[in-house]
Amino acid sequence: VNVERRPIVAVIGNNRASERVIAIAEELGTLIVEHGWRLVTGGLSGVMEAASRGAHGSRRYREGDVIGILPGGEASAANRWVDIAVPTSMGYARNVLVVSMSDAVVAVGGGAGTLTEMAMAWQLGKLVVGVEVEGWSGRLAGQAIDDNRPDRVLAARDAAHAVERLSLVLASAPA
Amino acid sequence: VNVERRPIVAVIGNNRASERVIAIAEELGTLIVEHGWRLVTGGLSGVMEAASRGAHGSRRYREGDVIGILPGGEASAANRWVDIAVPTSMGYARNVLVVSMSDAVVAVGGGAGTLTEMAMAWQLGKLVVGVEVEGWSGRLAGQAIDDNRPDRVLAARDAAHAVERLSLVLASAPA
Amino acid sequence: VNVERRPIVAVIGNNRASERVIAIAEELGTLIVEHGWRLVTGGLSGVMEAASRGAHGSRRYREGDVIGILPGGEASAANRWVDIAVPTSMGYARNVLVVSMSDAVVAVGGGAGTLTEMAMAWQLGKLVVGVEVEGWSGRLAGQAIDDNRPDRVLAARDAAHAVERLSLVLASAPA
Amino acid sequence: VNVERRPIVAVIGNNRASERVIAIAEELGTLIVEHGWRLVTGGLSGVMEAASRGAHGSRRYREGDVIGILPGGEASAANRWVDIAVPTSMGYARNVLVVSMSDAVVAVGGGAGTLTEMAMAWQLGKLVVGVEVEGWSGRLAGQAIDDNRPDRVLAARDAAHAVERLSLVLASAPA
Repeated sequence: VNVERRPIVAVIGNNRASERVIAIAEELGTLIVEHGWRLVTGGLSGVMEAASRGAHGSRRYREGDVIGILPGGEASAANRWVDIAVPTSMGYARNVLVVSMSDAVVAVGGGAGTLTEMAMAWQLGKLVVGVEVEGWSGRLAGQAIDDNRPDRVLAARDAAHAVERLSLVLASAPA
Repeated sequence: VNVERRPIVAVIGNNRASERVIAIAEELGTLIVEHGWRLVTGGLSGVMEAASRGAHGSRRYREGDVIGILPGGEASAANRWVDIAVPTSMGYARNVLVVSMSDAVVAVGGGAGTLTEMAMAWQLGKLVVGVEVEGWSGRLAGQAIDDNRPDRVLAARDAAHAVERLSLVLASAPA
Repeated sequence: VNVERRPIVAVIGNNRASERVIAIAEELGTLIVEHGWRLVTGGLSGVMEAASRGAHGSRRYREGDVIGILPGGEASAANRWVDIAVPTSMGYARNVLVVSMSDAVVAVGGGAGTLTEMAMAWQLGKLVVGVEVEGWSGRLAGQAIDDNRPDRVLAARDAAHAVERLSLVLASAPA
Repeated sequence: VNVERRPIVAVIGNNRASERVIAIAEELGTLIVEHGWRLVTGGLSGVMEAASRGAHGSRRYREGDVIGILPGGEASAANRWVDIAVPTSMGYARNVLVVSMSDAVVAVGGGAGTLTEMAMAWQLGKLVVGVEVEGWSGRLAGQAIDDNRPDRVLAARDAAHAVERLSLVLASAPA
């Protein structure tokens, strides 16, 4: 019986992104599964799809490791790498869910939607990591979003660094 | 790559239930996983816990098959058989999610909360099965909830019958 | 300063309804405003529009008395009698809001959507009145939805009777 | 009949705030009602309460002009200046509602919650004004949140300037 559930890590970012950001997101997906964690994204394209595809690239990947929380009502809108599609019909309110179901959130790039999720994750007391690239993940990396928490958005140089920072907090499953 | 996602079946019912209802819920959990489907519940006790426990009893059970969508903000509120806990902080609005992420909904017994979910599942065009026991699953079994759909809530004598009815519609994975 | 807020009454029912049901809904809207209460509906057509139009027919009507909670993201979807349009972009989850913001709920006719709202209102401990006409308002009038509450869905013969039952519980403003 | 609904303006900011921020929020509430617009806030204390109190200070104030969208399930949590309390039981997801029901959003100060709302308002295509004080309203004033919109968060020196900027876009009712 699983008294200890596997940690869930969200990777958040834009529907469209630069090659560099896409490559980081994909590596994040792989490394997250590599550590025995589950991945959740917003289930669509860009960063969300890259991370989900990356998860499948880990030798430790098992069906069920990749969750996609969709804004619309149809599971078919999920990218093909999503194992568990969650159509919410809740529009942007689905962003609250992505964050509230995660133990930690890693942002890569990102516009207003990603900023919304970083701010909510901060508010909900989640671990927040920002990869130092263009967009809101880079702008907030190393900063406090407000003074209700004593810590900061953890700055990460790249995917490996982001996951290293997560692994100081989240329990990794033995390989 | 999974172009075909595994179907998701919700088992809904009360937080507290009779021994008979609990036994049916547990068997439902086992049979759902037996068919290669994923199980989702509201993640708490009673029918939700029994179905989740039952899922673990199938020889085909794999970690990740049991999802619990919680009303509160803490994953720790989930019963111990839930693999993927989804704290929503959305209160009763979480019932919408249980239904909207499912391909089919099986009700066993149930009060106002279960009735809410059966009615929403009907509205969202999901397959709805009602086990013929006390409570709303029995009261609505074999009936149309309104005339916006040509079909009825499928009546099931027991867990095996409920799953048999589901299997006419949902693709089962080969064992 | 308003230490006492005006009660809010929801009128729920179908997007399309019989002439009889429409007439009852319209009279309900008038009488609700007549008692100094505010009206909330799902903001669309049928019963929702009739009740909203009825509200405008009361000599005590003031702009702001009619609220419409919409499933979509555009205020323009509200019927013309809605003073305060609340686009939610939350789809069916908006039904939770209609109920949770109300002190009492009056159902007139209704299919699966109305049934969802009656069941949620019961769960949330709201006063629930069912007008004795075709549809779920009539089917549940005078019945307990489950045994978590000691009372019943109050049965009302018509609009005047429904409002009379409400007025035993909700404070009416002096004319 | 109201074919034209009165615009709704959200004032967002912290539960606790400096005297300067509170004074601006209060003046915002007054001026918003002065222009014939309705006010919506998150319904609690700090900036939300100050703006609501300010609304009552306008000679044009009418009961029903001040709406509070609450995170919890009890209307009694609203500050005393809220005319229409909307308990949502949806926790932080209620922030989506505050924004989606508004035609424009004015931020005064603010931490992570306000940042969430500014980012969502941007995403939903709403007019966003940031008052140039400490906190996120000042940090984002005059900036684009992402490049999906051609405009910027409008910078406002004070309450009068914020409302002046709104009045270029929103129709004011004749006094």
